[in-house]
Amino acid sequence: MASKEEKIVAEGEQTDEIQIKDGSICGFDSLHRLLQSSLSPQLFQEVSRLLIGLNCGRALDTIAIPEPAKSLSLNHDFDLQAYSFHAENESLRKPRLVRVGLIQNSTALPTTAPLLEQKRGIFQKLTPIIKSAGTSGVNILCLQEAWTMPFAFCTREKRWCEFADPIDGESTQFLQEFARKYNMVIISPILERDENHGEVLWNTAVVIGNHGNIIGKHRKNHIPRVGDFNESTYYMEGNTGHPVFETAFGKIAVNICYGRHHPLNWLAFGLNGAEIVFNPSATVGELSEPMWPIEARNAAIANSYFVCSINRVGTETFPNPFTSGDGKPQHTDFGHFYGSSYVSAPDSSCTPSLSRHKDGLLISEMDLNLCRQLKDKWGFRMTARYEMYADLLGRYVRPDFEPQVVADPLLHKKSL
Amino acid sequence: MASKEEKIVAEGEQTDEIQIKDGSICGFDSLHRLLQSSLSPQLFQEVSRLLIGLNCGRALDTIAIPEPAKSLSLNHDFDLQAYSFHAENESLRKPRLVRVGLIQNSTALPTTAPLLEQKRGIFQKLTPIIKSAGTSGVNILCLQEAWTMPFAFCTREKRWCEFADPIDGESTQFLQEFARKYNMVIISPILERDENHGEVLWNTAVVIGNHGNIIGKHRKNHIPRVGDFNESTYYMEGNTGHPVFETAFGKIAVNICYGRHHPLNWLAFGLNGAEIVFNPSATVGELSEPMWPIEARNAAIANSYFVCSINRVGTETFPNPFTSGDGKPQHTDFGHFYGSSYVSAPDSSCTPSLSRHKDGLLISEMDLNLCRQLKDKWGFRMTARYEMYADLLGRYVRPDFEPQVVADPLLHKKSL
Repeated sequence: MASKEEKIVAEGEQTDEIQIKDGSICGFDSLHRLLQSSLSPQLFQEVSRLLIGLNCGRALDTIAIPEPAKSLSLNHDFDLQAYSFHAENESLRKPRLVRVGLIQNSTALPTTAPLLEQKRGIFQKLTPIIKSAGTSGVNILCLQEAWTMPFAFCTREKRWCEFADPIDGESTQFLQEFARKYNMVIISPILERDENHGEVLWNTAVVIGNHGNIIGKHRKNHIPRVGDFNESTYYMEGNTGHPVFETAFGKIAVNICYGRHHPLNWLAFGLNGAEIVFNPSATVGELSEPMWPIEARNAAIANSYFVCSINRVGTETFPNPFTSGDGKPQHTDFGHFYGSSYVSAPDSSCTPSLSRHKDGLLISEMDLNLCRQLKDKWGFRMTARYEMYADLLGRYVRPDFEPQVVADPLLHKKSL
Repeated sequence: MASKEEKIVAEGEQTDEIQIKDGSICGFDSLHRLLQSSLSPQLFQEVSRLLIGLNCGRALDTIAIPEPAKSLSLNHDFDLQAYSFHAENESLRKPRLVRVGLIQNSTALPTTAPLLEQKRGIFQKLTPIIKSAGTSGVNILCLQEAWTMPFAFCTREKRWCEFADPIDGESTQFLQEFARKYNMVIISPILERDENHGEVLWNTAVVIGNHGNIIGKHRKNHIPRVGDFNESTYYMEGNTGHPVFETAFGKIAVNICYGRHHPLNWLAFGLNGAEIVFNPSATVGELSEPMWPIEARNAAIANSYFVCSINRVGTETFPNPFTSGDGKPQHTDFGHFYGSSYVSAPDSSCTPSLSRHKDGLLISEMDLNLCRQLKDKWGFRMTARYEMYADLLGRYVRPDFEPQVVADPLLHKKSL
């Protein structure tokens, strides 16, 4: 596990280059950097207190990154940031420090390249980023949703189902080597080909143990049909429940992409004991960017666990134009995947986000003891009255459910 | 109902007076105003797009406030802001425009004054603010939690239970007149004395119809035991379920204070059909301020309804010092109630907040059609798989519940 002593220097001190074009801003890198470079230190401190939950505006400590990891970041042009969350020391438990890594990236080749080259290109592109995580002492690493491929779940690239891999396929084998080499748990979200059940597809996260073994899998529970993201034409709702994986570095779970909009999904991972929930996603600016800083933080607060949010980067253009239900003309891309991966803590603090544009590795060190500290402080689990909601949901799912409505008896009386 | 034609001029254009004292900022009025006065217009636009969900950073329209309402605000020194949310026009339904008012206020007299004077002082203080809402065409008005009294739910003012009122008591009678006069639904959150059940206490919202009739009541479902807020020593968990009140101006519900930390509580009001959920609260900076912009907005997004968040203002000092579980020395106040009342919409937009320091009235006009528009766009209700969660919660509440944990079989193998 990582040691607290390594925290020395501040990383990620770049300032933003802000370009104004046609009256609007383009190319800014992250909200955090934008505010930091635009506000006075005192104002930035107060804004940080309110916006990212930092105690009296005190910034999260940064973690010193080893030279080899830094060189990889410079030579391969990916964003590298590392932070450490605060937690109290306890009297009866030792700290349980875990170092988590999140990777966000664009694809390597145009979508017109042969599929095998596209896939291999991504493997090659990710190699230095994964090495950088390994040499930085990352204990648990998570990749983005469907990381082996462009986000092809639109309506006209059905043959791209070829990208699907079985649980123990090429993508898992590629990552197992790194897991063994760096003693690192790796979460690998892929399009899964379920060979034992008629070769059907799932949107799945494979959890690889720190010895390179496959601990298990989780299949995406909630599938979007929003904007261009009509993913239900590619695979079905998952059948794996809400597993929590007990790894060498803590109890973790995976809430894939659109599942982040469902508070019950977050809740279920919490009830099963998760201390860190990863949310590998693929989402674009116009659709969801204002929700991005809200939902994950709310889940971390409400469920007293850490949430690690990952979003891919860049614009992917597809060979065949496609249409959606929103009335827009046919088009060949989803828009800009805005990156902005970040980590939220149960005490309502969060890290700054990675870039909106660049590949990146975000490292966060956390003491998992913080989860129970917040449970004891706020008591959400004890005050939750789950019986009431078990009863309500049990009634709600019946077709004859009657909502609890109290109508004003004077509803149709004319106003005086 | 309010008319869209009235939107003309911009209100609330004050800039912040920022004072820096001992290296930190005090006295700033709201995050929105602070950023607006500190950033260039282009930067502020982009920050607004990301932070308050405004489409391309386009500000919410402001509503013209009638002169008499403005005069009341100037003469009685309360903040007055008015905004209108965007919604699409539909082909088969007319817009259902509703104008909502939220009141936040400090108490009128010191807590050492006789109780009757304290209560009457608040009635007197609220009168011009309620009139201002009435003359501004507000259809539904909500007051803050336990509005008739200081927030006395600490551990040594038990005799202040005297502030409790029956549902049809003095506080309701006071508001019924305004409801009739202005054809306005009024939500009145009080400490309730339940005379028909042994004179016990509840934390209750009374819903008064626009004809002055009492439509019904809701009792706070979730009671905090956090920091100084050990309210469970004053009253018990509510027994009214999750009622939705069908009023002349739409289906509304009330999630009182600490209930905002419980996603299931928000969910239940949604399942019962709420289009606007009010959250009258009393909370202080050190405890919850970074959560304040997160939880209500998440609830609005996840449940496709509007959320109206109210928090009281100021520091209330109590006669007898009290202690809490946090190890701090005895003290006589909870800290600063930071106001900051605001409204969140299902499309993830929100209004700026009222002041952190001043009494205020926030008026928001919304087309309730936006709720279903967002349900149709995002499909959260259809993709929610409630059966799975009804089953999980049914099992969870049993003492023999076993969490779904997949342990790494190599968990105790030594690292390679």
